[in-house]
Amino acid sequence: MADLASFARAVLRAAGADEESAAAATRAMAHASRLGVDSHGIRLLPHYATAIAGGRVNGRPRLRFEEDGAVARLDADHAQGARATYAAMARAVDLAGRYGIGAVTIRNSSHFGAAGAFALAAAEAGCIGFATCNSDSVVRLHDGAERFHGTNPLAVAVPVEDGRPWLLDMATSAIPYNRVLLYRSLGMALPAATASDAEGRDTTDAERAEMLAPLGAAFGFKGAGLAGLAEILSAVLSGMRLSHEIAPMAGPDFARPREMGAFVLALRPAAFVDPGMFRAGMARYLAALRGSPAAACPVMAPGDREWAEAERRDRDGVPVDPTTLAALAALAGRYALRMPEPRPGAG
Amino acid sequence: MADLASFARAVLRAAGADEESAAAATRAMAHASRLGVDSHGIRLLPHYATAIAGGRVNGRPRLRFEEDGAVARLDADHAQGARATYAAMARAVDLAGRYGIGAVTIRNSSHFGAAGAFALAAAEAGCIGFATCNSDSVVRLHDGAERFHGTNPLAVAVPVEDGRPWLLDMATSAIPYNRVLLYRSLGMALPAATASDAEGRDTTDAERAEMLAPLGAAFGFKGAGLAGLAEILSAVLSGMRLSHEIAPMAGPDFARPREMGAFVLALRPAAFVDPGMFRAGMARYLAALRGSPAAACPVMAPGDREWAEAERRDRDGVPVDPTTLAALAALAGRYALRMPEPRPGAG
Repeated sequence: MADLASFARAVLRAAGADEESAAAATRAMAHASRLGVDSHGIRLLPHYATAIAGGRVNGRPRLRFEEDGAVARLDADHAQGARATYAAMARAVDLAGRYGIGAVTIRNSSHFGAAGAFALAAAEAGCIGFATCNSDSVVRLHDGAERFHGTNPLAVAVPVEDGRPWLLDMATSAIPYNRVLLYRSLGMALPAATASDAEGRDTTDAERAEMLAPLGAAFGFKGAGLAGLAEILSAVLSGMRLSHEIAPMAGPDFARPREMGAFVLALRPAAFVDPGMFRAGMARYLAALRGSPAAACPVMAPGDREWAEAERRDRDGVPVDPTTLAALAALAGRYALRMPEPRPGAG
Repeated sequence: MADLASFARAVLRAAGADEESAAAATRAMAHASRLGVDSHGIRLLPHYATAIAGGRVNGRPRLRFEEDGAVARLDADHAQGARATYAAMARAVDLAGRYGIGAVTIRNSSHFGAAGAFALAAAEAGCIGFATCNSDSVVRLHDGAERFHGTNPLAVAVPVEDGRPWLLDMATSAIPYNRVLLYRSLGMALPAATASDAEGRDTTDAERAEMLAPLGAAFGFKGAGLAGLAEILSAVLSGMRLSHEIAPMAGPDFARPREMGAFVLALRPAAFVDPGMFRAGMARYLAALRGSPAAACPVMAPGDREWAEAERRDRDGVPVDPTTLAALAALAGRYALRMPEPRPGAG
């Protein structure tokens, strides 16, 4: 990963990012690539380089915070999303240090990246972290027949003594959109109740899938409601664009800022309960969960699968799919950089 | 509802509740009965009367708050759940008035009731409200084969100008447990992927259903993760019992407090964004959502169905099922109270 990360930083610097922006974007991509969330991993590097070089994303932003009690508003000056969000979470953690809890809305940000990366940053600082954003419309409403919400993720991380944080990073759609693209290229049928055709009817035909279903299948009002929560916290509470108002991530316009909002929150456990009691409570909960009888596969806590994957990848390297590998080679050519040699794979 | 509510208050007072406890419990039940959430409506009155009379719930609690910045801890002295939670949410709203955001953990509480009632109390005070708790184990983990989490609800309410609040009140299980009981009594098959037999295998046979599935069907790790969030915030962050450690709601022990935790949070929108911009954002979001093309049924925002039901019930009365009606008659006899005359119905 170190080789890939150095390359990513160098590409972003060459595309026009300042040191902090390049480091933050690389940190978020490395998080996702390590944990096996390849949709938000190094695969995004060409996109970020294009967005910075084109001017959609400001590679040298001046972040401005305004505080009001335990709350802050960040105007991110059209920063790369991870640059804005890591800074916002650091401020939320700082507020939680002073007030027990801290929340920050982000204005004028851009593509969020892996929400779990930012929740995790809070957990690494000893706080419970929560991060959410809205994103390009691609998910229908419950009973809906058009793309309305984004996949609007909710991520929560909780510190665990002597262990990896409890880490939930979930889209509020049934599946991510790139799963549809993957199934198309594999010629496979989608799982039931995960996607709909252009009229909003359920389809398992990846070729006909025009939009995603909200999480919950027949109970999709729950997934749609959670997507709405993400929308309200990240777009309405920041005064930014709703999902269906955001210019498409894929362009063609790479010059104009997308004016995206986001929301982060940190809670300091010691403000609520004796720290020893909190640690013991998490340990007791996780031991009970991991020891719970399983029907088939072993029972896992949120994050267990991802941390195991990170261990594998730290040992074996991060696999990179052929499309991304070709895009990285093009970037190496464009910016006259030494091409890294990641492990080829499905990514 | 007024007649039923007066009766409920009188029963609770006669069972040993002080005026505030009787009023709070009645308010929460009336909320649920009005909005059509009958599982948490007037049906709970016999249970609450038994719990107070038996000593499990302290009808005359002395609530003690400790504040630390924008955070407070409430020791509810084994109060009735609504008594504790309305007080905690009022404090969270007060903290949000001072700090922009406020969170309160609740210790030594009891059965929560309808989570949406408490989130709504924040919205009625102009805040975004969030309420959650854990509860008796009845939901398996993803890939699990035993009852582990409770139905652990998440409720969020958001104020809307000139309209009813946006109101999401969802169990993190696929369905509530009393849906299983209902389908048993109707001899009907359950929806797919909502319940499991004693070995954790999916079943649609209500008679064989031994535990609920987490929300999400094949993606049940998301529902289980959300249940875990409820568990961590309400039990670990308060130092109270995990779902599988809570004594059964149904008894037989009605003398010993159940030591349940809960968590509430309030955000004051004006601390984050210009109030006019927030109101306009919510209006724009809801207009787009309600105007979104529908596949079959009309598209609704969270709460729309419930507010429409409340309007019908305010006009026609609250229907009460035969079992509950008989239990209310028994209470009227026990405490020598005039029996209310609610609309008989399916409840």
